[in-house]
Amino acid sequence: MKPITSVQNPRIKAAVRLRDGRHRAKQGRFLIDGLREIHRAVEADVDLCEVYVCPARCTRRQQMEIAGLVGDVDGPFFEVAPEVFDKLAFGDRAEGIVAVAERPDWRLEDCALSAAPLVAVIEGIEKPGNIGAVVRSADAAGLDAVILADCRTDLVNPNAIRASLGTVLSFPAFEATTEEALAWLGQNKLPIYAARVDGAVPYDEVDFRPGGAIVLGSEAGGLSAAWSGAAVTPIRLPMLGRADSLNISATAAVLFYETLRQRSV
Amino acid sequence: MKPITSVQNPRIKAAVRLRDGRHRAKQGRFLIDGLREIHRAVEADVDLCEVYVCPARCTRRQQMEIAGLVGDVDGPFFEVAPEVFDKLAFGDRAEGIVAVAERPDWRLEDCALSAAPLVAVIEGIEKPGNIGAVVRSADAAGLDAVILADCRTDLVNPNAIRASLGTVLSFPAFEATTEEALAWLGQNKLPIYAARVDGAVPYDEVDFRPGGAIVLGSEAGGLSAAWSGAAVTPIRLPMLGRADSLNISATAAVLFYETLRQRSV
Repeated sequence: MKPITSVQNPRIKAAVRLRDGRHRAKQGRFLIDGLREIHRAVEADVDLCEVYVCPARCTRRQQMEIAGLVGDVDGPFFEVAPEVFDKLAFGDRAEGIVAVAERPDWRLEDCALSAAPLVAVIEGIEKPGNIGAVVRSADAAGLDAVILADCRTDLVNPNAIRASLGTVLSFPAFEATTEEALAWLGQNKLPIYAARVDGAVPYDEVDFRPGGAIVLGSEAGGLSAAWSGAAVTPIRLPMLGRADSLNISATAAVLFYETLRQRSV
Repeated sequence: MKPITSVQNPRIKAAVRLRDGRHRAKQGRFLIDGLREIHRAVEADVDLCEVYVCPARCTRRQQMEIAGLVGDVDGPFFEVAPEVFDKLAFGDRAEGIVAVAERPDWRLEDCALSAAPLVAVIEGIEKPGNIGAVVRSADAAGLDAVILADCRTDLVNPNAIRASLGTVLSFPAFEATTEEALAWLGQNKLPIYAARVDGAVPYDEVDFRPGGAIVLGSEAGGLSAAWSGAAVTPIRLPMLGRADSLNISATAAVLFYETLRQRSV
């Protein structure tokens, strides 16, 4: 099959549009950059609709790894010319493969929980890199799920996929409204711990062993009033320095690993 | 005084060049974006050479805060037209103030240590955002210092300043070679803990109360062979997920807060 050499090719044009969140919502599809991330998607049964490969943008080793991928994928492979690939690809990543995938219908109500479930809720987050980093840490620390409550970025934003090393595709992560998240936590009877700079309870005095939900807001906006009820325990990390806060992915990592530490003792 | 309206103004041209690390090294100066960061610099006795203010890019409140800064700064203030400011300023930050500062001569040998000092060494880091995030967490968790060993970015890179909320200017952070860092740790008799994905000792089994040095490498390159000696204890964080690593700022935050937790008990 001949390589696609025109950026005017309708498939290419439709794929390029998926860099934009509105087009992802409209088409119900998204892009996956890079082999590792595509592997993660395949493992997670995400359907790949099209895979674009640019041999000129691959090392020999990557070409062999891509050849190994062919058997695992139902959708068609297309070879593209470098100028087409550069239009399709994300940033300066020198890995000549991009896939178009069907957006899975991940629903919070389908989330399977362990016996003493630990979930994280992140509210109002705008930066996809932060979402990706939090999901990556949640995956590493063995949480059950991450809920994106009223987040202003979708889970399959290319930057979120990248920052998560593709774990947003394999780890149970869900988009919801804050209201839906609160209702779901209530149904599952999860104690709620909201991280606040002025939280009353030091984070390491919480007993996370029975499980619970750790709620984190954005640096700029903090948490909404929905997380101030009597059912919510406000927790804090000590802040000894000049700055009176940590970034959300650092806070998340500290809290998630404290739960793991307690549960491993 | 009339506002500067030309981007050809020699001061403006020299200042704009400071976005580039080579020019920072050559001029011995750097840029500070934003009021909070400039305040942090003033508190840390960093000399401001010039301060550029663009009233059209400030809210009323920012203008008042800037007026309050005038007494604290020796260097001259310049008003600049919006088109000049947009050339000077960094990214999309809507805060109409940028300062040119003298690069302080921070030397590792001048670093003051507490009785049971805890320092972090980060080696070979390229992304200024990661450097900034690590310093911010070190500041929050009360470490004594951070050493940038063989890092490919300078401490006063605008992105490092931003990601650290300006704490790279107030917190003791030092650039050094790996060799210098190792020699300094030896002189100060600090036990060395190197974070590795295959480290033998779980991080929470280390007794950090007597102090020590936590060494972190880049995700891509890991740590150099210099950190494999008998004097170095390789430590690890548990990794329960699909991805077999955390990003450096998440790892740093977990380790730094574990030291604080142990020392607070």
